Amino acid sequence: MNLDFATIFGLFGSFAVITAAVLIGGSATAFYNLPSVLIVLGGTFLVTTMSYSLFEVLRSQRLILRALFKPHRRPIEVAMDMIELAERCRGRGILKLQDYISQGDPESFQNKSLQLVVDGLPADEVNRILSNELKAMSARHNSSAGMLHRAAEVAPAMGLIGTLVGLVQMLSSLDDPSTIGPAMAVALLTTFYGAVLANMFFSPLASKLERNSAEEVLINRIYIASATSIGRQENPRRLEMVLNTLLPPTERVQFYN
Amino acid sequence: MNLDFATIFGLFGSFAVITAAVLIGGSATAFYNLPSVLIVLGGTFLVTTMSYSLFEVLRSQRLILRALFKPHRRPIEVAMDMIELAERCRGRGILKLQDYISQGDPESFQNKSLQLVVDGLPADEVNRILSNELKAMSARHNSSAGMLHRAAEVAPAMGLIGTLVGLVQMLSSLDDPSTIGPAMAVALLTTFYGAVLANMFFSPLASKLERNSAEEVLINRIYIASATSIGRQENPRRLEMVLNTLLPPTERVQFYN
Amino acid sequence: MNLDFATIFGLFGSFAVITAAVLIGGSATAFYNLPSVLIVLGGTFLVTTMSYSLFEVLRSQRLILRALFKPHRRPIEVAMDMIELAERCRGRGILKLQDYISQGDPESFQNKSLQLVVDGLPADEVNRILSNELKAMSARHNSSAGMLHRAAEVAPAMGLIGTLVGLVQMLSSLDDPSTIGPAMAVALLTTFYGAVLANMFFSPLASKLERNSAEEVLINRIYIASATSIGRQENPRRLEMVLNTLLPPTERVQFYN
Amino acid sequence: MNLDFATIFGLFGSFAVITAAVLIGGSATAFYNLPSVLIVLGGTFLVTTMSYSLFEVLRSQRLILRALFKPHRRPIEVAMDMIELAERCRGRGILKLQDYISQGDPESFQNKSLQLVVDGLPADEVNRILSNELKAMSARHNSSAGMLHRAAEVAPAMGLIGTLVGLVQMLSSLDDPSTIGPAMAVALLTTFYGAVLANMFFSPLASKLERNSAEEVLINRIYIASATSIGRQENPRRLEMVLNTLLPPTERVQFYN
Amino acid sequence: MNLDFATIFGLFGSFAVITAAVLIGGSATAFYNLPSVLIVLGGTFLVTTMSYSLFEVLRSQRLILRALFKPHRRPIEVAMDMIELAERCRGRGILKLQDYISQGDPESFQNKSLQLVVDGLPADEVNRILSNELKAMSARHNSSAGMLHRAAEVAPAMGLIGTLVGLVQMLSSLDDPSTIGPAMAVALLTTFYGAVLANMFFSPLASKLERNSAEEVLINRIYIASATSIGRQENPRRLEMVLNTLLPPTERVQFYN
Repeated sequence: MNLDFATIFGLFGSFAVITAAVLIGGSATAFYNLPSVLIVLGGTFLVTTMSYSLFEVLRSQRLILRALFKPHRRPIEVAMDMIELAERCRGRGILKLQDYISQGDPESFQNKSLQLVVDGLPADEVNRILSNELKAMSARHNSSAGMLHRAAEVAPAMGLIGTLVGLVQMLSSLDDPSTIGPAMAVALLTTFYGAVLANMFFSPLASKLERNSAEEVLINRIYIASATSIGRQENPRRLEMVLNTLLPPTERVQFYN
Repeated sequence: MNLDFATIFGLFGSFAVITAAVLIGGSATAFYNLPSVLIVLGGTFLVTTMSYSLFEVLRSQRLILRALFKPHRRPIEVAMDMIELAERCRGRGILKLQDYISQGDPESFQNKSLQLVVDGLPADEVNRILSNELKAMSARHNSSAGMLHRAAEVAPAMGLIGTLVGLVQMLSSLDDPSTIGPAMAVALLTTFYGAVLANMFFSPLASKLERNSAEEVLINRIYIASATSIGRQENPRRLEMVLNTLLPPTERVQFYN
Repeated sequence: MNLDFATIFGLFGSFAVITAAVLIGGSATAFYNLPSVLIVLGGTFLVTTMSYSLFEVLRSQRLILRALFKPHRRPIEVAMDMIELAERCRGRGILKLQDYISQGDPESFQNKSLQLVVDGLPADEVNRILSNELKAMSARHNSSAGMLHRAAEVAPAMGLIGTLVGLVQMLSSLDDPSTIGPAMAVALLTTFYGAVLANMFFSPLASKLERNSAEEVLINRIYIASATSIGRQENPRRLEMVLNTLLPPTERVQFYN
Repeated sequence: MNLDFATIFGLFGSFAVITAAVLIGGSATAFYNLPSVLIVLGGTFLVTTMSYSLFEVLRSQRLILRALFKPHRRPIEVAMDMIELAERCRGRGILKLQDYISQGDPESFQNKSLQLVVDGLPADEVNRILSNELKAMSARHNSSAGMLHRAAEVAPAMGLIGTLVGLVQMLSSLDDPSTIGPAMAVALLTTFYGAVLANMFFSPLASKLERNSAEEVLINRIYIASATSIGRQENPRRLEMVLNTLLPPTERVQFYN
Repeated sequence: MNLDFATIFGLFGSFAVITAAVLIGGSATAFYNLPSVLIVLGGTFLVTTMSYSLFEVLRSQRLILRALFKPHRRPIEVAMDMIELAERCRGRGILKLQDYISQGDPESFQNKSLQLVVDGLPADEVNRILSNELKAMSARHNSSAGMLHRAAEVAPAMGLIGTLVGLVQMLSSLDDPSTIGPAMAVALLTTFYGAVLANMFFSPLASKLERNSAEEVLINRIYIASATSIGRQENPRRLEMVLNTLLPPTERVQFYN
């Protein structure tokens, strides 16, 4: 997995823009209030936990990290490799795949796909098993992204609750008019924290997780199509055609010609 | 069913955070107003009742309790057991299942699945009957969660209505400026109650109900696949493969090797 | 059709709660303003009429009444009756159904289902015809509920429009500061009316209509399954099994044993 | 196409209600501001144009007119005619259809359906061609309604933008406190215009278009079923049964008995 | 690709309307604030980047340009050409297609479709390959439009965050009452920018992209139907009938008669 520069760049860039806006307007101390931070951060964490299991919430850190990385190979490179492999298998026979598999990580989707072919399973069976596995993986990724989406819904709600707490406290003791302004500023802080967390952190990270997952699914679909084709001992030119229908039109392979 | 710590932890934790925020800002008495409580709690209860039947609303307490618990066995443990059982049936014959069934609760989904196999129904018929039952159970759970989702929609609406009542009362008799603040504070309380109820109680409990239901469905799907496989007298290694496509990739069984 | 106590109880209860909240806060006269009532009630009626036909809007009163009633027999009772009937037909032949039909309302779904069997249509044909009719009925009910849902969307919009009218009138002639409060109170009344109408009347009645319709569909599905089974002269024990997959697990029939 | 009284009645009625509310509160001049009208009407027109083609926006006037009319025959009347026609064809042969067709508009869906039968196409082919055409027509109607829905989304957004322009202008030059009220009244006018346009014009007309289109689709489905049945030379009693599954249960035909 | 006048006209027109509204109300300088521009434009760019890849965000300029253009031929013209071509192939044989292809761009969808026919692939295979390619193209276009939709969601959120920053700064230092107005005006500017960007730029351009893509898909569907028909050596009259079911009813071809 390679570092995903778009995530890093967008995340730090947008927080830098907001920080700059705060500093230009004067002191940043007006934007920090510990109870407000606790209401929004703590509340969002606790309410999200309620919807999920402790286990899932604890692994959420790993999840967030995953959004900072992406598959280290592009789909077009993977497709090129697979056509080359199909070409080699045609010449030297399917059993030569075993050498290829033993070089890589046996737990990778690629090698598990090829192993099924080497084991002599019929192509339709290989296709069925791998498609099921891919569906399960895709569902798991979606549920991970769902947790970040949920947090993006909860954060503004906690911000609103915090602001209501602040407003009720301010309004129920309107003794000194000079404190109204600062009290309202503090009350608005939780709304501000909630909006920033939801729109600049949880929501874009959820989208990025979904995107990187979609790319991984595409790569694995290439492995499935290749394994099925090799298992059927089809002409590699046909595999090239099939892979090109999977790949986006701007990223097509041209192994032959 | 075991206690679901995530629900308990999130529920009490988030209410503790809000209570702390209230107490830090001064007295908590400004946050309690009996008519406001009645409008939001009573109104939400009554309007939700209108959409459902009395019977369903009365059992809602049991429903909310269910969100505090979860299936006491994890899917991977269930899958392991079922493969072991399939292995045993292979050696000693399907009729030995009767002994296994008589040890457990005859009303459990597991034993009803196995009983159908012992009774000699064809595997396709077993699969059809159990899949229908699972669909009905899933629909029932969803309708239960739907009631909590409905309450989560109604609560903020009742909060808004209460706040409008308070504002109209305050604005129509603006005699003493010193009462404006406290009157608005009281008017905002119903919005506050509605936001807390919806976002920190109904909505996360509905999500948790859906999640625990999804896990129960997965476990029952393992029972269906196992019963069908045993009924067809397939090789238990094949059952392991099928179950692994159902289980999330990080929780796969490895009975053999 | 029996009276649906949940609807009556919720409807009167929630209006009682709001009325109590209004009376506790002082006089109720501040909450009544004829032009505001006309804007919201009349506007909602007229705009909803625009989306539908005059014929449909005029029968809406009957529709709203329907939400106050529900099918007078529970699905489990219907299922029990049908299994008993299947048992009797097995002994005495399908033609005895004619006596059973002639006792009841010939226009009821139940008797129309059985008549098709008596007329000797093949079971698949009976199933097809009745399923089509059920689909049409379900679509009609949904469109009825849709009209109430539409009114629930229109009412708050008319409330907002009324409030904007009031605000513009108040702001464009700010001569006497003492009139600002009461004028804003009146302006807020349409928002209040719209919120009450939508959340405490149209929306829950629409949901209740959908629920009662779903129960009627379930009962008719029981009639279809029974008629098909009797037409095929299947064992009534098999019918019991089929009906139990339709019924919610907590309301299963046990005719045998 | 006949005039659709529900549309006319709802449209003029609801504008009359709002006009009455404006006049009761005093002078109507406070509710008219040319720049505000231009921002909302012009902006909504221009932004909607951006999403569509010039051609479509120009024919939108015809579209809006269409929502004021509806099919001049009710589905039940069409069904009755078609059964009578099937009865006649049974006696005198399919070729007599030609006389029937030549009396009407050859471009009508009815006559195009029957022409295909006269031309001797197999019934399945007739069904396939007409179903495809119906799908295309339905998609086109939906896209027309979609344009009005889009305008209903754009209008409040333009209203908000206009109000923000007014607020910024007012706030940036707070010299004379006596002008604040009227300036805010003017700023609110665009929000008012946007709400009225969206909720009392675009949105209900879009719904009405969809409804009238659904009725036209139902009528054309009756023509398809009839043409197919006549082509297959089926018993007209069977056609009656098929049409009754298409028609809503309260509007069934009873040609026989 | 021809210039899409509707986009140009709507885009410049709506910005002209808003500019006019600003200028009528006085000086335009109150509407320009560099930090506000940076928060909304920069923030929207950076947060959208986080959800996508750098590569996609950089090509977004080309994307936006594409919404300003549309296919240079209308579907009806393409259909007419294809029927004429089918007629010619019928007389002179499929191999004459090669001449036709060599005149145009070999990378166009049209010529790739025809090349597959010339290469002698069976018609079903041609249909399958091209349909897959069309699905991939459609998915790619939707993802492009999705990026603009995402930006349309992010822009108002950044506007809200900017306004909250301004309000907190203003409220926390309420020393001089005369600065409240201008400070609030500046705080509202980010909301204004966000609303304008989302509603008058990103959202309509996304819709236009989707529409132009739908037209391109329709044109390519005409190529697929034509290539399949020519490959099967069907009667061109049949092709005319098939194309007319694809084309909207108001734009049908009439090659024969």
